Amino acid sequence: MEEGSEKQKMNDYAHKKVIVGFQGVKGSFSEQALIEYFGKDVAAKNVSDFEDVFLALENNEIDYGVLPIENSSTGAITEVYDLLRQYGFYIVGEKCVKVEHNLIGIKGTKLEDITEVYSHSQAFGQSKEFLKTYVDWKLIPYKNTAMSAKLIKDENQKEKAAVASRRAAELYGLEIIASNINFNKKNYTRFIVIGKNLDLNDEVNKISVVVSTPHKAGELYGILRHFAEHDLNMLKIESRPIIDRSWEYFFYIDFEGNLNEKVVEDAIKLIEKNSSFFQLLGNYKGDNNSNPKLR
Amino acid sequence: MEEGSEKQKMNDYAHKKVIVGFQGVKGSFSEQALIEYFGKDVAAKNVSDFEDVFLALENNEIDYGVLPIENSSTGAITEVYDLLRQYGFYIVGEKCVKVEHNLIGIKGTKLEDITEVYSHSQAFGQSKEFLKTYVDWKLIPYKNTAMSAKLIKDENQKEKAAVASRRAAELYGLEIIASNINFNKKNYTRFIVIGKNLDLNDEVNKISVVVSTPHKAGELYGILRHFAEHDLNMLKIESRPIIDRSWEYFFYIDFEGNLNEKVVEDAIKLIEKNSSFFQLLGNYKGDNNSNPKLR
Repeated sequence: MEEGSEKQKMNDYAHKKVIVGFQGVKGSFSEQALIEYFGKDVAAKNVSDFEDVFLALENNEIDYGVLPIENSSTGAITEVYDLLRQYGFYIVGEKCVKVEHNLIGIKGTKLEDITEVYSHSQAFGQSKEFLKTYVDWKLIPYKNTAMSAKLIKDENQKEKAAVASRRAAELYGLEIIASNINFNKKNYTRFIVIGKNLDLNDEVNKISVVVSTPHKAGELYGILRHFAEHDLNMLKIESRPIIDRSWEYFFYIDFEGNLNEKVVEDAIKLIEKNSSFFQLLGNYKGDNNSNPKLR
Repeated sequence: MEEGSEKQKMNDYAHKKVIVGFQGVKGSFSEQALIEYFGKDVAAKNVSDFEDVFLALENNEIDYGVLPIENSSTGAITEVYDLLRQYGFYIVGEKCVKVEHNLIGIKGTKLEDITEVYSHSQAFGQSKEFLKTYVDWKLIPYKNTAMSAKLIKDENQKEKAAVASRRAAELYGLEIIASNINFNKKNYTRFIVIGKNLDLNDEVNKISVVVSTPHKAGELYGILRHFAEHDLNMLKIESRPIIDRSWEYFFYIDFEGNLNEKVVEDAIKLIEKNSSFFQLLGNYKGDNNSNPKLR
């Protein structure tokens, strides 16, 4: 999409009084993804859990929801994968956000003051090489990175620090003690935008589906061959357990394509026919930062 | 394996003074898996993090390690997948443990007393339907289920409860307030046994490998076809991010077979040839409870 049309779209969202939900508080990476996708003038509503975003959409309190689905260092956010299938809404957009973690504390905090560090467990995972060098620190998992920053502000002690974004530090008037502490300097989180309806147009180029197969030799292969035989580029496969059938799986598959293309229609027909479960999760424009080889 | 030979093996482990490492404390599900696999007379050494099990094996402080790799409700324990690939040890065994969670507290605690609940976040996930009915409870993620029980014992307040095993309740002298609160009544955790060497024999029937592929259309299919064409039953595929190559993946694949079989040797040769990365993770006897259709 050209920059002009992206700006036009953002203006439209604001003018149409679109309301967008996200999980977390001000200063979270979810809010950042929301602003980068919808623009800063859109109405945002924050809720406390991932499932609350789905519930708000179900109850028409929001028009769209923004949710993290995958991080390039720590992998899938599995709860969101499960909720996507359960609620049956559609992925209508994607936004990739660069995630830089910082160690932050109240004014004047030094590394040697710190005894406890608060953050989301994924942020600990993404910063583990740095944190490993301070073995005495107690790492306390907390709801999310921005709320950890807020906690540090409220407690106002030099013994306590948080791992969070630069924006969270600014919002809560805290100082950065060590910056960019994530071990993977190419640390991105991929966010999806969900809505109640598919939004097909010429620009959409990425399709997400869920399938499951009978538990027999070659069955998954029997599904994937249809992508290969139709020359459709598979971007990702993620397995999630089927709760009441131990050690059987839902496969979440992302691939390149537009549902209006004949070759995609043909492949999907065959895949659906050969699956014991099939669900279309969406067709949307992939963010170039998360799909470097998307055509 | 027949029951007699299993008992014989356990006696051997004890007589040979084998030392086995696990993560957590007494009363954890990891310890239970260790006892079920190695017998109650084997020497056990507990460490505080998953990586410490790998380090203890590397430093010859233990002969084997026991680690959770997957839960049938919440899915892969991704950190263990990543460590397995990084350290290059082998999976030599598998044990599947039924996981039942209970809400436990000090003597006399009633549901209405409780304001805070401690447990591992996976145990919260596995008990979420029950916990949802008590919206006022603050759920505090903690290192593991057994340590949460110990904390409740130490704090000795009726306002605090833990989600943990029946055995943890017994070990720490606590009462069960609500039993079997996991929403999936078929809730299993699959544990792996790791060692420094492959242990090939006629009984091993499950193979684990990691592969990665060039990021092109049909490449994963190009790997999986070799399983199908050799009639090898794929049991599981799990994707993990390749840290420094955003949105590319390692695929962890489990399939039925014994490395001494010609058909397995042929398939692996082709798979290795067509992968950009290949690592053998092990060949071991699958636990029948985790692989219901393992021949």
